[in-house]
Amino acid sequence: MKKKEIVSEIFKKRSFLCVGLDSDINKIPKHLLDVNDPVFEFNRKIIEATHSHCVAYKINTAFYESRGVKGWESMEKTLHAIPKGVFTIADAKRGDIGNTANHYARTFFETLPFDAVTLSPYMGEDTIRPFLEYEHKWAILLGLTSNPGAMDFQFINTANGKKVYEEVIRKCASWGNPDNMMFVTGATRAEMLEEIRQIIPDHFLLVPGIGAQGGSLELTYKYGANQEIGMLVNSSRDIIFSDTTENFAEAAGRKAADMQRQMSALMV
Amino acid sequence: MKKKEIVSEIFKKRSFLCVGLDSDINKIPKHLLDVNDPVFEFNRKIIEATHSHCVAYKINTAFYESRGVKGWESMEKTLHAIPKGVFTIADAKRGDIGNTANHYARTFFETLPFDAVTLSPYMGEDTIRPFLEYEHKWAILLGLTSNPGAMDFQFINTANGKKVYEEVIRKCASWGNPDNMMFVTGATRAEMLEEIRQIIPDHFLLVPGIGAQGGSLELTYKYGANQEIGMLVNSSRDIIFSDTTENFAEAAGRKAADMQRQMSALMV
Repeated sequence: MKKKEIVSEIFKKRSFLCVGLDSDINKIPKHLLDVNDPVFEFNRKIIEATHSHCVAYKINTAFYESRGVKGWESMEKTLHAIPKGVFTIADAKRGDIGNTANHYARTFFETLPFDAVTLSPYMGEDTIRPFLEYEHKWAILLGLTSNPGAMDFQFINTANGKKVYEEVIRKCASWGNPDNMMFVTGATRAEMLEEIRQIIPDHFLLVPGIGAQGGSLELTYKYGANQEIGMLVNSSRDIIFSDTTENFAEAAGRKAADMQRQMSALMV
Repeated sequence: MKKKEIVSEIFKKRSFLCVGLDSDINKIPKHLLDVNDPVFEFNRKIIEATHSHCVAYKINTAFYESRGVKGWESMEKTLHAIPKGVFTIADAKRGDIGNTANHYARTFFETLPFDAVTLSPYMGEDTIRPFLEYEHKWAILLGLTSNPGAMDFQFINTANGKKVYEEVIRKCASWGNPDNMMFVTGATRAEMLEEIRQIIPDHFLLVPGIGAQGGSLELTYKYGANQEIGMLVNSSRDIIFSDTTENFAEAAGRKAADMQRQMSALMV
């Protein structure tokens, strides 16, 4: 999917919402457990109820892998159930040497034809390069994450007066461009988006941490949005697990519609 | 598997060899492509021919995931074909926030009952912690990797005169202990193992980069070994793809035996 298509969808739907399909089989409504593939059935209904309010879905691979082969089947079916025009992200946070990275790129761009995959940059350029060689596909690099442990290494002070995460974002940005690379930047540190925008004014940001993790949509937009909006704000549990009765899908649809309205109000 | 069992196997076999099952379906002998699960059949024969010369197998998940559901089936069957007493590593390089990390831990310690999994530390403590809660299981953290891109971020100079990789190793070591944590330290930078041993004298090291990537076994041993040997040296392509005819398994067995002899000679 090209950047201009993503931007066009955002303005058409007046939404920059990404719905995270963290579909833990232990948390989905119990009545679904009798069907053949409960996780896929859950996702199918969530997608049906939310797709007109969001522009992206993010599938967190951990929740599928933990069920082994069955989980990979659910993931594959879910990906194919997402309507055309909605951006698809494998939240896989992979990262390995060149030869191995080729196989991960094949996994998430060919075997499972996602538009984008999240990647950990710690091992450097050769671990990212293979993902940038696919046309109209996206590498989404961990920049500044929203979890407590982000403090451990991302905030180390470097000898030239920067933080490690700033050096990571600056260098990673030099390997690709705003048409094939995005950055994960956590909403729990919204005010830092202002500085990050100095480094990467034109890249899309994937912003987790709104809702359950405590981040603010208003601040995230204030400090992170650019003329193309330039961000996908993710919400997972708050939307997909807002109700665990037989009405879960309608409830998720209402939550997503509510997020869409908040986003529309910001997009003046 | 407990540390003392690993050490005991090393002294019994006089080997600290880890065989990497980077079993790319495009590189295995062509005559295997007619069977039902060529990758599993390849691995089964490699394991049969090499297990008496090595103390560990490392399954690189990328080479299995790139084949989707079929690949996960091959991985599962391969894991169960590894004889008891041989240490098993999922080379998965995962890393995600706490809630998600729980699912990755379940994936590689329960659904697929490996002894150990490789992890990327970039996101910090909460992304590692869930793996340390399993008894007799191991988190193997990326410290200093063997690829060219290691220079990009691992070697950033920090404000207090260290390199980022040193800070990473030091802090990660404080979360666990030598009985539940190992570190990936690349053999292409063998002389640096001396400094790393100052930080973590008692942890096991998982050392890739011998052979195809140019690292030296002698130097790795000289700078990295401790009284328990304290290292697993990995070799993948050099062993498993040393011959691509019908005699591939015997050839791999000879290569592994040759490595074992070199290791035994060092273990004076």
